[in-house]
Amino acid sequence: MKTIIGLDIGGTKILGVLYDESGKKIAESKKKTKASEGISTVMDQVYKVLDDLIEKADDSLLGIGAGVPGLVSEKGVVTFSPNIPFKDFDLKGQIGKRYKVPVAVGNDVNVAVFGEYKYAGLEKVKHVIGLFIGTGVGGAIIIDGKLYTGQGSAGELGHMVVNASGAYCGCGSQGCLEAYASKTAMQNHIVSQLQKGRSSLMKDFSQTDGSVIKSSTIQKAYEAKDALAVEVVSYSAKYVGIALGSLINIFHPELVILSGGVIESMGKAMMPIIQQEASRHTMPGLLESVTFKSSKLGDEAGVYGAYQLIKTQLKL
Amino acid sequence: MKTIIGLDIGGTKILGVLYDESGKKIAESKKKTKASEGISTVMDQVYKVLDDLIEKADDSLLGIGAGVPGLVSEKGVVTFSPNIPFKDFDLKGQIGKRYKVPVAVGNDVNVAVFGEYKYAGLEKVKHVIGLFIGTGVGGAIIIDGKLYTGQGSAGELGHMVVNASGAYCGCGSQGCLEAYASKTAMQNHIVSQLQKGRSSLMKDFSQTDGSVIKSSTIQKAYEAKDALAVEVVSYSAKYVGIALGSLINIFHPELVILSGGVIESMGKAMMPIIQQEASRHTMPGLLESVTFKSSKLGDEAGVYGAYQLIKTQLKL
Repeated sequence: MKTIIGLDIGGTKILGVLYDESGKKIAESKKKTKASEGISTVMDQVYKVLDDLIEKADDSLLGIGAGVPGLVSEKGVVTFSPNIPFKDFDLKGQIGKRYKVPVAVGNDVNVAVFGEYKYAGLEKVKHVIGLFIGTGVGGAIIIDGKLYTGQGSAGELGHMVVNASGAYCGCGSQGCLEAYASKTAMQNHIVSQLQKGRSSLMKDFSQTDGSVIKSSTIQKAYEAKDALAVEVVSYSAKYVGIALGSLINIFHPELVILSGGVIESMGKAMMPIIQQEASRHTMPGLLESVTFKSSKLGDEAGVYGAYQLIKTQLKL
Repeated sequence: MKTIIGLDIGGTKILGVLYDESGKKIAESKKKTKASEGISTVMDQVYKVLDDLIEKADDSLLGIGAGVPGLVSEKGVVTFSPNIPFKDFDLKGQIGKRYKVPVAVGNDVNVAVFGEYKYAGLEKVKHVIGLFIGTGVGGAIIIDGKLYTGQGSAGELGHMVVNASGAYCGCGSQGCLEAYASKTAMQNHIVSQLQKGRSSLMKDFSQTDGSVIKSSTIQKAYEAKDALAVEVVSYSAKYVGIALGSLINIFHPELVILSGGVIESMGKAMMPIIQQEASRHTMPGLLESVTFKSSKLGDEAGVYGAYQLIKTQLKL
């Protein structure tokens, strides 16, 4: 039996899974990222997860795939990450040097969407756009069945400008989709309304400890027809729909995959608005040929996609 | 000697060129499109151009490539065109049936940008975005050295939403780049200002006959530092830059090719503004690795791209 490791390096935790060649899960390991303790601590945590799994792999390991939240160059260097202190860090080289196996590194959302695509077994579908609506908004582009990364960092769909003179975004730009549709944007909207005294079932939410509101909190309020929750969810959905309209005009893909915490909790409520806005913003006849799907793998998309990434690179 | 025909079917004229296999021009033919007289007249005009050229080709013709202003399906059916009465018209099938040679049909801007790319001989450059700023705004996407068309109609970059609650666009959508940066948008801007009595060197322009202002008219006023011309050119450039910022975040391409009448006349003046806005809207580190080029072929890009399109399809 030959094995492959998929690794999902997140802002708070690192998840690794040892798979066999058919994609069957053999073992799992999870550690805290400890991002605030600096890059060498983060790498120690990564190595602990990998050591755990490799112990169970014996000599059977064919390769390691990894997804990270940030910009990754064609050579597997993490040039920038908003949540982990990677800065021009040769993650692929470091892991490869230590474990002496082929390594593939990609952006976490790119990798997760590739996982969803491979898991769905859609061999006939060649062109796919993935949009991840969570704390931030990420994206992925699959062209001719392969993850498209351009010079390395393509697929930053959360940073398409949807409103040129609009809200400033955490990335330093203005009017980005992320500044309108992410959970962080929803939270800013909620907090601003609560601060001016508007009543809401979400009024007990406090961000004083720096935490981000849970999707489930918004979801519960939405289901109870809380006016502020309905407003916030509709607003996010509207901008997701506008961005998808643009993306369909740009890519004319066969499939759009929506994922992330916001979609997992509130995708059903958002979908009619998303569809309506996408319809308003696509060229005549394009939308009808595009299928929309939601994520099937949830939190496992990252590790599974990382496994598929290195497997594809090894031509297995 | 073997020959190939490149055909550029425009809203007002049809241009055809007979090339040899090395891309050398052997003969040229031009006719009016006569779009207002209906589709069968348009096709008669297309056949006249082709018959002219084929007479000179004897039995040497390998194939015909064509660019048309509109949405083209993967099978070469023109599903929709704003300027020519093509509606679900099997252009590839009709030409192929009549001339018994392989035919390739693409969107005019897609084809023209592919022509620019091939003409520049940039074999090492794999991922390219083309933006055409003329009466309308069109686009093209080259991935792995090949024209990317998705399910057929990809690359409608003029219909990216840059301002969600903004200006309505001729396509029926709202806030499209075309509604901000095209020559038509510039003209609307100029006319509205002239109507309220603002003075300008362009004050003699009249649109009462339905014509669109010439790029050279705006250019002359711009060069004479006419305040309205400066305003209008800056406004267009700003939105081109914003859209390119988004496109670089989406594609992380190696090269951006700018073309069209507005760029040919005023590209030099617009470029600093385009670069500045693109810089404001790209993720850290991406813009530095992207090269900007202007069109080299001008009006010949369409026929030359059509020639390259069928040549590539024939694997020559």
